[in-house]
Amino acid sequence: MATSDNTVFRLVIHGGAGAINRGRLTAEREAAYRQVLAQSLTAGYAVLSSGGSCIDAVIATIVVMEDSPFFNAGKGSVFNHEGQNELEASIMEGATRLAGAVAGITTVRNPIRAAHAIMMKSPHAMLIGPGAEKFAAAQGLEIVDSDYFYTSHRWEQLQKALANEQVLRDHDADSSTPFVNTDEKHGTVGAVALDRHGNLAAGTSTGGLTNKQRGRVGDSSIIGAGTYADNHSVAVSATGTGEVFIRAAAAYQTAAQVKLLHKPISEAADGTLKEVSSLGGDGGLIVLNAKGDFVMRFNTSGMFRGAIGNDGIAWTGIFPDD
Amino acid sequence: MATSDNTVFRLVIHGGAGAINRGRLTAEREAAYRQVLAQSLTAGYAVLSSGGSCIDAVIATIVVMEDSPFFNAGKGSVFNHEGQNELEASIMEGATRLAGAVAGITTVRNPIRAAHAIMMKSPHAMLIGPGAEKFAAAQGLEIVDSDYFYTSHRWEQLQKALANEQVLRDHDADSSTPFVNTDEKHGTVGAVALDRHGNLAAGTSTGGLTNKQRGRVGDSSIIGAGTYADNHSVAVSATGTGEVFIRAAAAYQTAAQVKLLHKPISEAADGTLKEVSSLGGDGGLIVLNAKGDFVMRFNTSGMFRGAIGNDGIAWTGIFPDD
Repeated sequence: MATSDNTVFRLVIHGGAGAINRGRLTAEREAAYRQVLAQSLTAGYAVLSSGGSCIDAVIATIVVMEDSPFFNAGKGSVFNHEGQNELEASIMEGATRLAGAVAGITTVRNPIRAAHAIMMKSPHAMLIGPGAEKFAAAQGLEIVDSDYFYTSHRWEQLQKALANEQVLRDHDADSSTPFVNTDEKHGTVGAVALDRHGNLAAGTSTGGLTNKQRGRVGDSSIIGAGTYADNHSVAVSATGTGEVFIRAAAAYQTAAQVKLLHKPISEAADGTLKEVSSLGGDGGLIVLNAKGDFVMRFNTSGMFRGAIGNDGIAWTGIFPDD
Repeated sequence: MATSDNTVFRLVIHGGAGAINRGRLTAEREAAYRQVLAQSLTAGYAVLSSGGSCIDAVIATIVVMEDSPFFNAGKGSVFNHEGQNELEASIMEGATRLAGAVAGITTVRNPIRAAHAIMMKSPHAMLIGPGAEKFAAAQGLEIVDSDYFYTSHRWEQLQKALANEQVLRDHDADSSTPFVNTDEKHGTVGAVALDRHGNLAAGTSTGGLTNKQRGRVGDSSIIGAGTYADNHSVAVSATGTGEVFIRAAAAYQTAAQVKLLHKPISEAADGTLKEVSSLGGDGGLIVLNAKGDFVMRFNTSGMFRGAIGNDGIAWTGIFPDD
């Protein structure tokens, strides 16, 4: 355990990176997004400012975004090809490098809490499907009907994707797999935190991709891809084209550039995004080190994001020039 | 795609690392293990020597071990806490860094083929559970009754683990999770191959841990943990304490040491195993580069392993001094 008497603390969040169209985002809608981001930051700040742990801050922060219908995580998650909400999440602490991950769950209100329970209470690092749900229930986590995750705007997104898929099939009779619109905004949420004890943590939660195949797992539940934390390098949470972030081991790659090559965190993040881009993906990364330095990088038109530190001022942003 | 006219080819395999007791391994049993290892090598050699791809060689090799009841993958997989065989696998090719992974499947005879089908035919990198099984069936892969995976020796191992768990519970009433015997031999299988075209591939397949919680996913299906391949560094397959290999991003970490620090592959493998050890795990790694150099490293008392190259001589080993 780190025993630094460093009293700097910091919390950085994202609510997904993607093709966010400034023209189509009304002022009302933008204000609503920023409000949830600020609420998330405030929830994590309350933990950190009172000397709480980075892990508890990450959980408190992500739960706010999971409970909001605006983000693609928890309530508000997108639907898969079969009309189900299949959720995934992961969490990691940098002091011990303990980690927990969960995927393919449909009944746990807050997947980030399930990931944390797996990290703390199971002998395993990752649980999926009914086994994960059974474990979450046994740990006393809130279980909901799968209807809880229904939102009309996500249902409409699925219907639109299914219609586009039909169009695609009309032109490509050989296609045997669902059409996934990679242009759409990804609404994955994530947080990285540095606590007053000098420890780092990272967490990520998502509903995945609209119209994804049943059983699809993205980078958000993969330690090393969507989430990584190591006190000796950085805490990272990613969002974007999950398949490519997995193939690039995006979160670990970012940490490795800092740890092995001593790169500045901005260069490390940009190096990872460049490789993601070369493999055909896009998205963003939030990166935080044990000194409290952080970056929020993305190669999409926007990324919902925010940061807060000792001064308690919640900064939020969406577009590059925010 | 690499277009090297290098005609060197190589195949390296493992059949799990762990506490293999030389005194309790009869000569007959040892010969039987070595025979399956040699058959696996011969199957992959047939692909590589005739100019086939590294990916096809990895699949042909692993299928032999999956079909053998001796290894903890496919037929011969261990049972989870609820008496089920839940299988996982992953595969990656170094030229494109395309990857496929599958977990939580109970009806696909050869999980490595399912991982490959996901890589080639789905828009995704990882599928789990019923969604993965449905996809595998639609791709024409062989589906079996879950009874197919039953073997009496694995069933007895579960009964023994359950009995030990009961003993443990008698002394620790608070324990709410299954007892996993980390001392037992891990029988995960894996292969790394270099083909005549200069391309690398890696694959891993397992039944996981005896008495694991239902839904547990280990490193074998995690790209970056159990499997990684990049023509610009190395192909890696891991076996061992899956939870720790995930937290260490073991396969990617090994590749990163080669790519970023230009370390010799033996140092890279040992560096990863040292970190695995510091996090409380053990196991082994096979690592192969595009020149055909390879290492088979482990920090357990033994690792089932083998290698074959242009000369067609199948080398097999179990103990450190083999």
